[in-house]
Amino acid sequence: MKLSQQQIDDFNREGWLFLPELFTQEETALLAREAEDIYAANRAEVWREKSGAPRTAFAAHLYNEAFRLLGAHPRMIEPIEQLFGERVYMHQFKINAKSAFTGDVWQWHQDYGTWKRDDGMPEPRAMNIAIFLDEVMPINGPLMLVPQSQNAGDLKASHDLATTSYPLWTLDEETVTRLVRQGGIVAPTGKPGGMLMFHGNLVHGSSGNITPFPRKIVYLTLNAISNYIRTPTRPDYIAHRDFRPIETVDDDALLRLARAQRQAAE
Amino acid sequence: MKLSQQQIDDFNREGWLFLPELFTQEETALLAREAEDIYAANRAEVWREKSGAPRTAFAAHLYNEAFRLLGAHPRMIEPIEQLFGERVYMHQFKINAKSAFTGDVWQWHQDYGTWKRDDGMPEPRAMNIAIFLDEVMPINGPLMLVPQSQNAGDLKASHDLATTSYPLWTLDEETVTRLVRQGGIVAPTGKPGGMLMFHGNLVHGSSGNITPFPRKIVYLTLNAISNYIRTPTRPDYIAHRDFRPIETVDDDALLRLARAQRQAAE
Repeated sequence: MKLSQQQIDDFNREGWLFLPELFTQEETALLAREAEDIYAANRAEVWREKSGAPRTAFAAHLYNEAFRLLGAHPRMIEPIEQLFGERVYMHQFKINAKSAFTGDVWQWHQDYGTWKRDDGMPEPRAMNIAIFLDEVMPINGPLMLVPQSQNAGDLKASHDLATTSYPLWTLDEETVTRLVRQGGIVAPTGKPGGMLMFHGNLVHGSSGNITPFPRKIVYLTLNAISNYIRTPTRPDYIAHRDFRPIETVDDDALLRLARAQRQAAE
Repeated sequence: MKLSQQQIDDFNREGWLFLPELFTQEETALLAREAEDIYAANRAEVWREKSGAPRTAFAAHLYNEAFRLLGAHPRMIEPIEQLFGERVYMHQFKINAKSAFTGDVWQWHQDYGTWKRDDGMPEPRAMNIAIFLDEVMPINGPLMLVPQSQNAGDLKASHDLATTSYPLWTLDEETVTRLVRQGGIVAPTGKPGGMLMFHGNLVHGSSGNITPFPRKIVYLTLNAISNYIRTPTRPDYIAHRDFRPIETVDDDALLRLARAQRQAAE
């Protein structure tokens, strides 16, 4: 799995890159099923909306075999190591639900601001990855990105504790308006298995979801090992302290697990 | 302005019909400017979001010349009279803001349920019309319709007083899921000036708007004169009591006003 020079240039200019259907239907169907089991569990890593619907589940790669394989998958890890020219470790691993009917908004924000302020991450040399577990449509709350906004650096943000159940450092309307005037908004959509990667300073957000179509994504952060966090303040299931480089699994490891589980069920 | 037999058949089967760019850029630019003036005014007909941003302005056709002309425009009135085989009057006239950044959700609902319960409207022989004053995009909270759901009749609904600042009779998740499985969801988008018409029993809703792009639409209801409301309970700026058939203005009346205003400003 190697990015082309064109893809690398696109990423460096626009701050994001989308690889449709990078994972197969069999692989993502397994992950989607496992995600539902995780959401159903009553554990500290599963955060909920005001409605009680799941909002995000942290660190599933540490307690679920399918997500462990995904978190070490060469189709995901190798392009990021190629872009950074360095090995990476898992800084954060979430499964964001954006549940049918009740999935709530994520206001406009950058992620690196939080990693710097809360975790002591030195540089924005960490990559956001979104892997689609359901079909992402224009109508079920797709991630919206502001292309080129990574060039604006680390913007002033306010801690929003009111809008939703999840505290977030969010940007003001004037700043978002200015950046959108320059770069527009894109909202990549597509079948389960697509992988969206974007820069830690890229401005992004998402609307609520009132449709009957859930929009689960795995949303994780791969950090360059030299850029490990220095002064973490958040629980380690949110900001991980295992800074060892990820050892990738075989390219077919997830597929083999899916087939083994299906055989066991037959 | 006449609908083709194909358009009439489409409407009868799907419950909605979209006419892109029915009004010109000059006409809609005038209406968009006038809408901003109306929102800025402090009057009982202007309802606001919890944030204070405008949500909807009622009855502007009764106190604003541009909206008076729109409310009697032949390009809008004639297709509806053609579909009903009868003349129509204005039952309700709103300008819905769906403001940039703060525009809030409208949960899934049918309109005829409210007209029946609150206004005593005998039959669903009233047409919903949405005229785009801004560009409607997938990302700024377009109206979402469930095609063919008009065939489900008047569905059981609950009065939602909690979700937003606007009380609404909304449908439960099981019902919406079932109807979407049958008919899907469409979200017509396009430039200012487009006109969307849909059946009074068609299930619809819209997500919030966190983008810098406002999504103002004129949202009005034309009722067949024989179907006038019998037992109104809401203020007459919400459910009108003038049951006389609309006398249409000239096709170029709105355009002439736009040009006159522009000349006066030069």
